[in-house]
Amino acid sequence: MGSSTRTLKIGIIGFGTFAQFLAKTMIKQGHLISATSRSDYSGFPGVHFIRDMEEFMGLEHDVILICTSIVSVFQVVKKLLLQEVPQDSDLVCTHPMFGPESGKDGWKDLPFMYERVRVKDETLCSSFLAIFENEGCKMLEMSCEEHDRLAAQSQFLTHTIGRVLSEMEIRNTPIDTKGFEKLVQVKESSTRDSFDLYSGLFIHNRFAKQQLHNLESALERVKETLEAGMSKISKMDKWLLVSRK
Amino acid sequence: MGSSTRTLKIGIIGFGTFAQFLAKTMIKQGHLISATSRSDYSGFPGVHFIRDMEEFMGLEHDVILICTSIVSVFQVVKKLLLQEVPQDSDLVCTHPMFGPESGKDGWKDLPFMYERVRVKDETLCSSFLAIFENEGCKMLEMSCEEHDRLAAQSQFLTHTIGRVLSEMEIRNTPIDTKGFEKLVQVKESSTRDSFDLYSGLFIHNRFAKQQLHNLESALERVKETLEAGMSKISKMDKWLLVSRK
Repeated sequence: MGSSTRTLKIGIIGFGTFAQFLAKTMIKQGHLISATSRSDYSGFPGVHFIRDMEEFMGLEHDVILICTSIVSVFQVVKKLLLQEVPQDSDLVCTHPMFGPESGKDGWKDLPFMYERVRVKDETLCSSFLAIFENEGCKMLEMSCEEHDRLAAQSQFLTHTIGRVLSEMEIRNTPIDTKGFEKLVQVKESSTRDSFDLYSGLFIHNRFAKQQLHNLESALERVKETLEAGMSKISKMDKWLLVSRK
Repeated sequence: MGSSTRTLKIGIIGFGTFAQFLAKTMIKQGHLISATSRSDYSGFPGVHFIRDMEEFMGLEHDVILICTSIVSVFQVVKKLLLQEVPQDSDLVCTHPMFGPESGKDGWKDLPFMYERVRVKDETLCSSFLAIFENEGCKMLEMSCEEHDRLAAQSQFLTHTIGRVLSEMEIRNTPIDTKGFEKLVQVKESSTRDSFDLYSGLFIHNRFAKQQLHNLESALERVKETLEAGMSKISKMDKWLLVSRK
């Protein structure tokens, strides 16, 4: 695959932490990056930053990456379609299942999900996907529907547990078990992401609501089992008291 | 400390997975181990196993370790006191915050909590604690009360999350994030321990009930925040529909 790749002119809309994280590797691979964003990132090394969206869209791009938060992605797409982007552009949906934290030591073996929603220019699409393939990502082609189902089971649940632990204000104790240390890490990495991201995982994934419900009822069942054990012990205690008389 | 230690005759009551795990290191350090248990472990290398409790108590021991499950510890202690153990024996409460899984590559830096409840023979007590000190454990002297408070915050919570995840039957997906992988590990390590252990952590720790309540209400608050975000979006959608007319 590496041989069929070519240098791409990549335009990034929304240049927050995650986009910056991706851009670093793309620059390293020799691609040309321009970006636009609500905030000013004009100092970012190796990136042609353009504040004005219209001016940005006037540039010639092979690929446009929409890297805004989940909650604002619809607005951006609508604005784009009303502006310069031909409605029959090729379209690839992707989800790198990692970020600045989990991918800080490279992207090897980290999962990268994608769906080729509408692709005519095969070479262009391959060249784009090769960015992630070349870094050793585990490439997973699946429908967005299947992705949402799996992401609710894993990613959304992880963020929920992390947010719950954060609400509980858990912190390291002198007697931490290995398992508890992992929970503290889950809490810290979930809350390092914005609440917008977490909220987006819930609002825009119809499987998430069911998963939240599953979590609640699982907790309820565990609680009932504990309380049943407790009442058994209490009855034994009572019996001991009676038999001691 | 290493120089002041001496060979100990250690008798272990209850020789399940955890006791066997401890015994291996004690044998390696040159201590003499005898054990008794409901099940027959007479084949265990390096251990003098005696099925009959009375015969076991007839042996001369420097230290008796009670390694039964939490839920049966009271029965065992009562039986012991009615039998051979002088009621004024020295008494040290300990909790190694690790087990066969987390301690499989050695005990270095793993927390070992203890309270010297009633100690007259200082040398004996030191020799016993040295077993854990010599392996590099992080030695933590604290009251059982303080231990229970911290253990509810960390260990009990970890086991609860693990049991809840197990109820949900979570499993690895092709798109696992690093955080979700940690949760799968927490689930697996919690359910590798017996339900008796988990139940014991709840029943015999008065802080655990409060922690379970904290977990429930934290989940409730996170859910409310998500739903508030959802209803805000729905209102915006409605407004968009209205303005489109």
